[in-house]
Amino acid sequence: MQTPLTIGSMMVHAEKFFAKKEVISQTHDKLHRLTYSEIGERTRRLMSALGQIGVQKGDRVGTLAWNHHRHLELYFAAPGMNAVLHTINIRLSPEHIIYIINHAEDKVLFIDEDILPLIEKVQDQLTSVEAFVVMTDKEELPESGLTPLYSYEKLLQTGDPAQPFVTDIDENDPAGMCYTSATTGKPKGVVYSHRGIVLHSYALGLADTAAISESDISMPVVPQFHVNAWGTPFACTWFGTTQVMPGPRFTPKRLAEFIDRFKVTITAGVPTIWLGLLRELEQGDYDTSSLRTVLCGGSAAPKGLIQAFEQKLGIPFAHAYGATETTPLATFSRLKSYQQDMTEDEKLNERAKQGSLVPGLEMKVIGNTGEVAWNGEEMGELLLRGPWIADEYYKDDRTAGAFIKGWHHTGDVVTVDEEGNIQIVDRTKDLIKSGGEWISSVELENAIMAHDAVFEASVVAMPDPEWQERPVACVVLHEDFADKVNKRELLDFIRPQFAKWWLPDDILFFDEIPKTSVGKFLKRELREQVKAHFKVEE
Amino acid sequence: MQTPLTIGSMMVHAEKFFAKKEVISQTHDKLHRLTYSEIGERTRRLMSALGQIGVQKGDRVGTLAWNHHRHLELYFAAPGMNAVLHTINIRLSPEHIIYIINHAEDKVLFIDEDILPLIEKVQDQLTSVEAFVVMTDKEELPESGLTPLYSYEKLLQTGDPAQPFVTDIDENDPAGMCYTSATTGKPKGVVYSHRGIVLHSYALGLADTAAISESDISMPVVPQFHVNAWGTPFACTWFGTTQVMPGPRFTPKRLAEFIDRFKVTITAGVPTIWLGLLRELEQGDYDTSSLRTVLCGGSAAPKGLIQAFEQKLGIPFAHAYGATETTPLATFSRLKSYQQDMTEDEKLNERAKQGSLVPGLEMKVIGNTGEVAWNGEEMGELLLRGPWIADEYYKDDRTAGAFIKGWHHTGDVVTVDEEGNIQIVDRTKDLIKSGGEWISSVELENAIMAHDAVFEASVVAMPDPEWQERPVACVVLHEDFADKVNKRELLDFIRPQFAKWWLPDDILFFDEIPKTSVGKFLKRELREQVKAHFKVEE
Repeated sequence: MQTPLTIGSMMVHAEKFFAKKEVISQTHDKLHRLTYSEIGERTRRLMSALGQIGVQKGDRVGTLAWNHHRHLELYFAAPGMNAVLHTINIRLSPEHIIYIINHAEDKVLFIDEDILPLIEKVQDQLTSVEAFVVMTDKEELPESGLTPLYSYEKLLQTGDPAQPFVTDIDENDPAGMCYTSATTGKPKGVVYSHRGIVLHSYALGLADTAAISESDISMPVVPQFHVNAWGTPFACTWFGTTQVMPGPRFTPKRLAEFIDRFKVTITAGVPTIWLGLLRELEQGDYDTSSLRTVLCGGSAAPKGLIQAFEQKLGIPFAHAYGATETTPLATFSRLKSYQQDMTEDEKLNERAKQGSLVPGLEMKVIGNTGEVAWNGEEMGELLLRGPWIADEYYKDDRTAGAFIKGWHHTGDVVTVDEEGNIQIVDRTKDLIKSGGEWISSVELENAIMAHDAVFEASVVAMPDPEWQERPVACVVLHEDFADKVNKRELLDFIRPQFAKWWLPDDILFFDEIPKTSVGKFLKRELREQVKAHFKVEE
Repeated sequence: MQTPLTIGSMMVHAEKFFAKKEVISQTHDKLHRLTYSEIGERTRRLMSALGQIGVQKGDRVGTLAWNHHRHLELYFAAPGMNAVLHTINIRLSPEHIIYIINHAEDKVLFIDEDILPLIEKVQDQLTSVEAFVVMTDKEELPESGLTPLYSYEKLLQTGDPAQPFVTDIDENDPAGMCYTSATTGKPKGVVYSHRGIVLHSYALGLADTAAISESDISMPVVPQFHVNAWGTPFACTWFGTTQVMPGPRFTPKRLAEFIDRFKVTITAGVPTIWLGLLRELEQGDYDTSSLRTVLCGGSAAPKGLIQAFEQKLGIPFAHAYGATETTPLATFSRLKSYQQDMTEDEKLNERAKQGSLVPGLEMKVIGNTGEVAWNGEEMGELLLRGPWIADEYYKDDRTAGAFIKGWHHTGDVVTVDEEGNIQIVDRTKDLIKSGGEWISSVELENAIMAHDAVFEASVVAMPDPEWQERPVACVVLHEDFADKVNKRELLDFIRPQFAKWWLPDDILFFDEIPKTSVGKFLKRELREQVKAHFKVEE
């Protein structure tokens, strides 16, 4: 009964029981269709080849790649030989990419063709990398200053197609890692264990969460370098799901075409992607009737987006919540059976929340005076614990601030309703503490953004001698409305929804709000700009 | 990331996230409706009370009980305090019950009112039991010679409603145990770990197996003393499923009424039960439209039964396979997405198989010359391994025969088709070895039972000087056909389906075929009778 939970065994299951099912993969040059039988054999060759180029147990195998079948093979080959898959966010700054590769001590880097130039530029600063592998369909290696440089397909040819997956693995051994950007300072590394990823895959297959099934056709839009594309490639392979990998630099048009052409049933990504897809679907003529779930996470989906998908397009939309530290699935939004007779509006409100805890995890929400009441109002920081929740940052002093007595302090401020559904109201560091009470910047932002003239709104805290902090809203207007809406009008618009002391002390108009590499507001920088505006000194 | 998988945490999840959902429970005297909030509190009281009557970590808590809410509370209270739930099959002989209780060294016994007399008779022979608890709705304790005898409800009143579940548990610690009857000798004990039961519960929630969901209304018909009612009470509690417990000595009529009245969506049991329910549903006027799955296991369901449920009644029927040693879910029958355009007949053939391996387990099928080909024809013994597959019998020398190098040798002879679906063709010990080749007794039995005149058929091996063994069929005719059908007619009936050397050498007519306590053919005894008939001596 003590056989370990291992990632290799998931691929073995797919090879045996889903040999004929397919992975459809778009690369730079063409569309590939490979069965799990073929993917399994290629993964075995890859494990064997990794060994030949010197990768050993525990070594980190870095990837700089889009969503495609070769990246999927690496998902299983690295942990399958008891090495560690390290997916690198290619959208980070070169300095951060250098830091991450050196900090993880990656031994080899697998790089997509179009990402080679990025690594060539920083090659001299990499301290641990001993080999580079380019993932390309072309026969010839591209011109490159990287040495030694291997071709992925040539390497595979040298590998043993019957190479076994390593089975004497401690399930707590590291299987993967991923760095998450920090508000200040360098990215922080999170390590995933075999155990965590296998259990997380079970969680994705549950009827009450994503219900990933053999009969699904899954297209992960969330990048494979972003928390393992939310773990879906692992779960989908295990369960024999057809996978459609949209490849490099996809457009909303390609996504829409793939949904139509390959009869995609489930797809996962962030709200920004779905906004783009929505526009494409509204303009074009696509058959999306195969879609049973658009899974949305990463940040909160506006209600309008959910409504547009469900009511205009008839596409079911599901909200989930997680983070790099949580592998990521932590909560999933789903109406309970006894909530089916709520009004459409009530249902939408409920489903726009981040949802309730996935079986297998534990949560606590800690407010000013201990655990908050589950009344949908009291705010507190969300703490998580469980077999796929990290308990440290990899070799990083910042562990002490985010992991306390086994609990991950997420930094997300939430309310919990009486059904156990959480709703994110802020980041701890973005909460505004006014007169000893908390004001949620996110709630103010959502209210302001509901105004037709507003394109974006971000609310930050300004130091205040009397109240400690006061909210100030920063607004970008739609082009058509530039200079046609003023501060008073926006304040009047939101006034009915809030207590008087919640209302922003000022509203400033901006051309643009600074953002992170993953499209989130860079509030720290915005705060500096606002402070400069008011000539505040701290 | 190393938080243990524990049974207590499943109840905590139900208390928090499914507080309002219900368990509907029939006891001797009345129908109870309790929420998970109430069940959780009662379970905490029970843990506290168990401590008061001397139960400590690792102690075995025996139960002799039907399917009801108190039995469910014990499912969580015993492992929740790191003791061990030992469910006892009340249908076994008194000698075997005595053996089991003494061998497991049960410290306390929880007994249903109507089962008290059974235990009173054997009390003197119990060597480890220090206390008895009667589960009754009545205020007064029944007259009984058992001492000390406690009332379940009175005990609960003394317990602390806030008693915490023990959390510093090694997930490999024993959580439960169940004895399985052996063909010869005493029953054999199987121990379940916290880890095994939690992982098995995930498996039951997967979209591609039983897909147990919050929105389900589950009625376990398989007894809670039989492999934990196939683990459904654990999974259903964790996922917030409404549970309908049919209570003591239920009839097909009660099952049909409960399905109708409580809108049951999923129910689990053995073919014999479904034959009885089928008759009741055909005679009575019941609304069964809520049923999404009748889960069938324990032994193979005849195709006619599947057809009757699906085609006559419109009730989806699902086949699964497992055993006491496998917690039990090992395989689940489900058509793959690309099999949907098979003919109805082909689908039925496929779905009448035991199905393919549940994610998380490993299997091997070993024939005469190593692993068999997956062609649906080659026969071999099914070997299983995984986190919820036992690796020993509890303190029992027979471990050596059934568990070899970590693999459980199931004793079931199967074929595997190219989709990975297994079909049980025999028990290893019932296979007939004729001239170095194997003949499946089960296939012969099924063919004979398809004849209208045949009520039951069992095929056994007779020693043969030339061929080593030869098959002989034992047949019970339907009353209407007694003496109207002869050997030749039955042989002619099955002749077209088999190679000549497969045909039984003789067909004997019986009034009855001896059976085990769970309704399986007692082939060992039958073989003795046949040998006596032929005056064979070995």
